[in-house]
Amino acid sequence: MRRFACRRYFSNLNLKNINQKVVGAEYAVRGEIVIRAEKYKKRLAKGDTSLPFKEVVSCNIGNPQELNQKPISFFREVLALTSCPELIDTAPNAFSKDAVEKAKEYLSIIPGGSGAYSHSMGILGIREKVAKFIEDRDGYPANPENIFLTDGASSAVQMCLQLLIRGPQDGIMVPIPQYPLYSASIALHGGTQVNYYLQENQRWSTTVDDLHKSYEEATRQGTNIRGLVVINPGNPTGQCLEESNMREIVRFCSEKGIMLMGDEVYQTNIYSTTPFTSFKKVVCDLKEECKDMSLVSFHSVSKGFLGECGRRGGYMEVYGMDEEVQMQLYKLASVTLCSNIDGQIMTGLMVDPPKQVVH
Amino acid sequence: MRRFACRRYFSNLNLKNINQKVVGAEYAVRGEIVIRAEKYKKRLAKGDTSLPFKEVVSCNIGNPQELNQKPISFFREVLALTSCPELIDTAPNAFSKDAVEKAKEYLSIIPGGSGAYSHSMGILGIREKVAKFIEDRDGYPANPENIFLTDGASSAVQMCLQLLIRGPQDGIMVPIPQYPLYSASIALHGGTQVNYYLQENQRWSTTVDDLHKSYEEATRQGTNIRGLVVINPGNPTGQCLEESNMREIVRFCSEKGIMLMGDEVYQTNIYSTTPFTSFKKVVCDLKEECKDMSLVSFHSVSKGFLGECGRRGGYMEVYGMDEEVQMQLYKLASVTLCSNIDGQIMTGLMVDPPKQVVH
Repeated sequence: MRRFACRRYFSNLNLKNINQKVVGAEYAVRGEIVIRAEKYKKRLAKGDTSLPFKEVVSCNIGNPQELNQKPISFFREVLALTSCPELIDTAPNAFSKDAVEKAKEYLSIIPGGSGAYSHSMGILGIREKVAKFIEDRDGYPANPENIFLTDGASSAVQMCLQLLIRGPQDGIMVPIPQYPLYSASIALHGGTQVNYYLQENQRWSTTVDDLHKSYEEATRQGTNIRGLVVINPGNPTGQCLEESNMREIVRFCSEKGIMLMGDEVYQTNIYSTTPFTSFKKVVCDLKEECKDMSLVSFHSVSKGFLGECGRRGGYMEVYGMDEEVQMQLYKLASVTLCSNIDGQIMTGLMVDPPKQVVH
Repeated sequence: MRRFACRRYFSNLNLKNINQKVVGAEYAVRGEIVIRAEKYKKRLAKGDTSLPFKEVVSCNIGNPQELNQKPISFFREVLALTSCPELIDTAPNAFSKDAVEKAKEYLSIIPGGSGAYSHSMGILGIREKVAKFIEDRDGYPANPENIFLTDGASSAVQMCLQLLIRGPQDGIMVPIPQYPLYSASIALHGGTQVNYYLQENQRWSTTVDDLHKSYEEATRQGTNIRGLVVINPGNPTGQCLEESNMREIVRFCSEKGIMLMGDEVYQTNIYSTTPFTSFKKVVCDLKEECKDMSLVSFHSVSKGFLGECGRRGGYMEVYGMDEEVQMQLYKLASVTLCSNIDGQIMTGLMVDPPKQVVH
């Protein structure tokens, strides 16, 4: 194959005349360091021995299967069977019984199979599984009509920020250190990033005093705070917040009338003795006290015991959102039609995995 | 399962204080009519006999497998095998030889398998297949470094519009009738939609006079035209443009220094005697004459003989774009990490399907 494009024209577009919000956004996870790493990989692959190392290991982003974590066969078997339902008859012995049963269940709830567009919020039967998972986790009801299945958590976060941010006067509070999706997306949507700081010596928690300080400083400068991001368990810090700290954060958001965005994609990656508690639970615990509260929380199949990053599956639950506003979020989700069906199936499998039965 | 959310709070968000670009966007494909159709479906499912029909058939969007078009087994077999590579050994007779060979080829070019994030532009080996397909189709070279694998064409179109549109002064020319992705996305990104009209009695072509008229009227009103969308074959009109008409459009874009966006997702759905010609070919034909030209063209696995809408697979080829601008497009693609891997595999299979061998 010839590898070069037609002679390059003088383009009518340049760095100065495109959308400056795009130019201004920084996304370190796929930025300079990654580009340099790729160059090194190519040099090593060509037999270059001049570098002081023999291998490049990419740890810029949690990508376990790239680093040889084996996928769990049950999930993959269900995907194979829903892609190719005839295998249920032609190769029954190649699959576990459980996987065949589970695949049949999914085939019965997916109208049109995995090759059809679904409802823009995702397949109802899978949203029902997600709602059940949230109810069992938190002890509070969840409504499938408040759940959106998305292409990973990243696209869900982008939709929420697009909904909130009207212009540079609108601020979103983000923890520092953060996962750069937030800084990049706030910049892309033209908002203002307002930092609050996590304290390493207090197990990466924040204090309500710090939140007030950041809020007030931003407000003094004319910024209208619209939302607050909490990443729990922390990314990149790894801590689980104490419930008492979470209650303070929820009270703060309620008092200020701002939306809480709970990034909970690492909820099964726990490295400390503090257990994971969801913001949904804390918000429901405080429902009498915190009247004016909307929460969106995010989850993903890319993390936890699955690590199925390439599937681009996940969900967001919206809670306490004005119905008309939620219809706007639905419209946003609709413009790209729906999230990919295999990612939706993987999300269903994540929230409703095979369970050990004790006889 | 309890089906209701916790008592709804008074939300701090309402239709008036969210991003008005979102509120202003209209997306008919998933709008009022679809919502009403869903209500009818639910009533029919509950046994309601008061409606003057017994069935609702959804034709609001091309979704062939929802309407019982059978998926092509070869493609599904390859997906099953790449999801579950052990099936190559445990169930060799359940698959066609060709599918097993093809799956092995894909497994060799996908580092980390289908559960790992790929390069943000997509898997290089698949981008090479896309480049080869474009070269064979057009007779001009294509460069895998100019190809982005995307979650369907819709997300590719959104990225391009996000790159181009800086504010309401920036206009994008769209054909009328159009596919509502364009009007919705232009509104979401805060630009101005500038209509040009297709003439039914001239086989839904446009004339260069009409383009000039629309352009000049918009310019007089202070709009800075930045891009022009052509949907070819037409959606919803179904025509293929004559090459002479396409040359006029390319010359127009070159003369005005605006980006041409070629939506070519229906390139294998031909209903007329006029064959499909790609804009890439026409732009390359005119390369001496049209110096200042950038083109982005879109393709998708959702249409044509595949109809694999639920996969969310597709690609865009950028051509004649300033390298620094293309890096910004790469950054935009990076913020959601990568498109789903099964959609990438399906895109590879679409551009490099099994071929009939004549002995």
